[in-house]
Amino acid sequence: MLEKLKEEVCDANRELVHCGLVVLTWGNVSGIDREAGLFVIKPSGVSYDDLKPSDMVVVDLEGKVVNGSKRPSSDTPTHVELYKSFPMVGGITHTHSTNATAFAQARREIPCLGTTHADHFAGAVPVTRLIGDKEVSEAYERNTGKVIVERFGSLDYGAIPGVLVAGHGPFCWGKDAMESVRNALILERVAEMAIKSIALDPNIQELPGHISNKHFDRKHGKDAYYGQEED
Amino acid sequence: MLEKLKEEVCDANRELVHCGLVVLTWGNVSGIDREAGLFVIKPSGVSYDDLKPSDMVVVDLEGKVVNGSKRPSSDTPTHVELYKSFPMVGGITHTHSTNATAFAQARREIPCLGTTHADHFAGAVPVTRLIGDKEVSEAYERNTGKVIVERFGSLDYGAIPGVLVAGHGPFCWGKDAMESVRNALILERVAEMAIKSIALDPNIQELPGHISNKHFDRKHGKDAYYGQEED
Amino acid sequence: MLEKLKEEVCDANRELVHCGLVVLTWGNVSGIDREAGLFVIKPSGVSYDDLKPSDMVVVDLEGKVVNGSKRPSSDTPTHVELYKSFPMVGGITHTHSTNATAFAQARREIPCLGTTHADHFAGAVPVTRLIGDKEVSEAYERNTGKVIVERFGSLDYGAIPGVLVAGHGPFCWGKDAMESVRNALILERVAEMAIKSIALDPNIQELPGHISNKHFDRKHGKDAYYGQEED
Amino acid sequence: MLEKLKEEVCDANRELVHCGLVVLTWGNVSGIDREAGLFVIKPSGVSYDDLKPSDMVVVDLEGKVVNGSKRPSSDTPTHVELYKSFPMVGGITHTHSTNATAFAQARREIPCLGTTHADHFAGAVPVTRLIGDKEVSEAYERNTGKVIVERFGSLDYGAIPGVLVAGHGPFCWGKDAMESVRNALILERVAEMAIKSIALDPNIQELPGHISNKHFDRKHGKDAYYGQEED
Repeated sequence: MLEKLKEEVCDANRELVHCGLVVLTWGNVSGIDREAGLFVIKPSGVSYDDLKPSDMVVVDLEGKVVNGSKRPSSDTPTHVELYKSFPMVGGITHTHSTNATAFAQARREIPCLGTTHADHFAGAVPVTRLIGDKEVSEAYERNTGKVIVERFGSLDYGAIPGVLVAGHGPFCWGKDAMESVRNALILERVAEMAIKSIALDPNIQELPGHISNKHFDRKHGKDAYYGQEED
Repeated sequence: MLEKLKEEVCDANRELVHCGLVVLTWGNVSGIDREAGLFVIKPSGVSYDDLKPSDMVVVDLEGKVVNGSKRPSSDTPTHVELYKSFPMVGGITHTHSTNATAFAQARREIPCLGTTHADHFAGAVPVTRLIGDKEVSEAYERNTGKVIVERFGSLDYGAIPGVLVAGHGPFCWGKDAMESVRNALILERVAEMAIKSIALDPNIQELPGHISNKHFDRKHGKDAYYGQEED
Repeated sequence: MLEKLKEEVCDANRELVHCGLVVLTWGNVSGIDREAGLFVIKPSGVSYDDLKPSDMVVVDLEGKVVNGSKRPSSDTPTHVELYKSFPMVGGITHTHSTNATAFAQARREIPCLGTTHADHFAGAVPVTRLIGDKEVSEAYERNTGKVIVERFGSLDYGAIPGVLVAGHGPFCWGKDAMESVRNALILERVAEMAIKSIALDPNIQELPGHISNKHFDRKHGKDAYYGQEED
Repeated sequence: MLEKLKEEVCDANRELVHCGLVVLTWGNVSGIDREAGLFVIKPSGVSYDDLKPSDMVVVDLEGKVVNGSKRPSSDTPTHVELYKSFPMVGGITHTHSTNATAFAQARREIPCLGTTHADHFAGAVPVTRLIGDKEVSEAYERNTGKVIVERFGSLDYGAIPGVLVAGHGPFCWGKDAMESVRNALILERVAEMAIKSIALDPNIQELPGHISNKHFDRKHGKDAYYGQEED
């Protein structure tokens, strides 16, 4: 069932290690088949070294396991909420990567300080509010997803493919599982640069809009000219 | 004698290098056989590259060498004290990993700033007092263990599997040697995130209890649902 | 066409990864054949792993593609401007390396704080002004080159083989493609040291001229005695 | 001539790369044969990858090349001064490692903040004064050695096997070439910990003498009990 997607999602989870984004079992990637209304996600607490496509768990958009012998990631209900509210998203990555998590712990958004950021995120990477006591006790992981969606109320999730959950860490997304991993890597690098720039100038200003817009548009706008033409 | 435990402890010591937690001979791991009342520890000052199970030293809970041709780690009496006072501990790791040691040198506990920390440590990672002059001259390594135990007076060593010895570095523990290494890795990563979060906000607040408790409980509480059910 | 140069430029682009200067496709290297008036540059948005000499794109000094089936790097017009204005330059490297970019984002030059810097750059590594709104909309990449050239008005590009584009990142150059990569690596290391030195002393002073001049001269002056005599 | 020493010194130079202490050609190691009154040193500006024992250069204590077809390191006269003034030294390493150099550039000694430092250096790692204008123009590299020796006027070079040359970087030494490399690695790690501890507490206090002396003595004192008994 969904064998090709399981392979993609397994590869994307293993890529987390190659990119230096996770140690131990601190992260998970999922990918969705929109037609089937099902997504594939990493099993909970399983080492990346041992991960095989057949370990992947298939889940429906109610969060029910449809296929697979292992428990899905404990963050599965967060993925469910994001897939339901962000219909163009094809893959989701959650990590505790060091620099992005440092911002999440400081409950501080990552301002757009340079073109590296502007190439990939149209504006600051937002930080959610802290999740409330009742939200935790009722349905922690589901409400984590809802708090993210709430934060994107007036923001475009297509142009800002990631968020910092306050006191927790980053969630990123993309058109498929592997692109969500790439966005998690970009976020981590952008966060590291931002920490260092802020150390060099605590009163640092954001990149002016005429530059940041140009960079985002040349990669993602309708007349984008970065990369090769797709066949 | 204790051949299987020697293998485990040897592997755990070598894992210190793979995790980037030590250079040269800056660390040691031990593991205990509670029934036999004996533990196995790295020999002093021997390179991790050359380490073989047969080099491991077997020590009793008086700190006397029972088996092995090499001197045990100079920190052996600290391990003895911890095994005697923390009866549920099966393995102990000591390192001088950079970020955890930075906190130990600053004599500052690591506050719980995020869920990465809360997943593994129920509260701040404590720092001991400085060891006194007489304690050093009488029995330095043994008293290092006693100072750790003293610090845990009202703390639960089962829920906080590590400590910073002031001016020195971290000691971590777990149900066996390898888990103590994992906890040392977690502590190092958590310390790095904390240093960066504090740089971003010197007045940073701890994670509220309703979130940190949830994270610790979903991994370690009686209704834990993280990971796979054990067979 | 220019087969040997394509190999050199391909190797130099791949070296960016080995040196840890880029992830994903965040950088590009070019090399010029001054006699032919043509340069060879990385194709846009292609992974370094897959890069072959035959993927390289040949461009003339008007920025027109002369040979190659792929689109050249989107930064090609910046390379054109630098080759036209800096006639002794044989290779150019652009990266978003973390520490150099941190300075670029803080819009702060890298002061000469030590002999590592002085060995390779005769004075501070300058930072450009921010590019203007009209300059962006008219010809962003070309004007990025012009802003760099403007910044070198009274500076010697032969003695300072690199620059920080404000809010963007570093461009470096050298006698050929590989030397420009080496200069990008040096710049990144020098930037990292400078960030740490500034953290240790926010009022740090530049290295006195009698030392910095000596270091630059012993490597690059007419009586240079560093390295081996060239055959 | 001195074939075995050439091998040792070649290995020690290559170890600089394995330890992450150098990039490009930013470092050099030498080792001395005290009976012969000759030392062996890396050739200037040669890549570590290509380094063979036969490339090593033999130099006498006047700094004259006695054997070898390549130019010795440009820092050779500094090594000469150290070998002449520090008669128990058997090997010398110079690097531009990032964290130690950050202290050298800030012209700040590395205070003894913890037992990692105390295990290897009896007190702060000193920083020299800046070398003067006339000293540079007369004999820069030789006078760099003299400035180091001057700094050790009342210090014990046997108990503090390294120094920071102000505005430049570290020189370390030991009983042979490889031990001097190990001391350079220790210095780099100790410097990194110190930068982070100082960030956590700008008013940090040095480790009390009763602890630092204990650590140095248990490794280096007459009743040392760290490591294995030597055969």
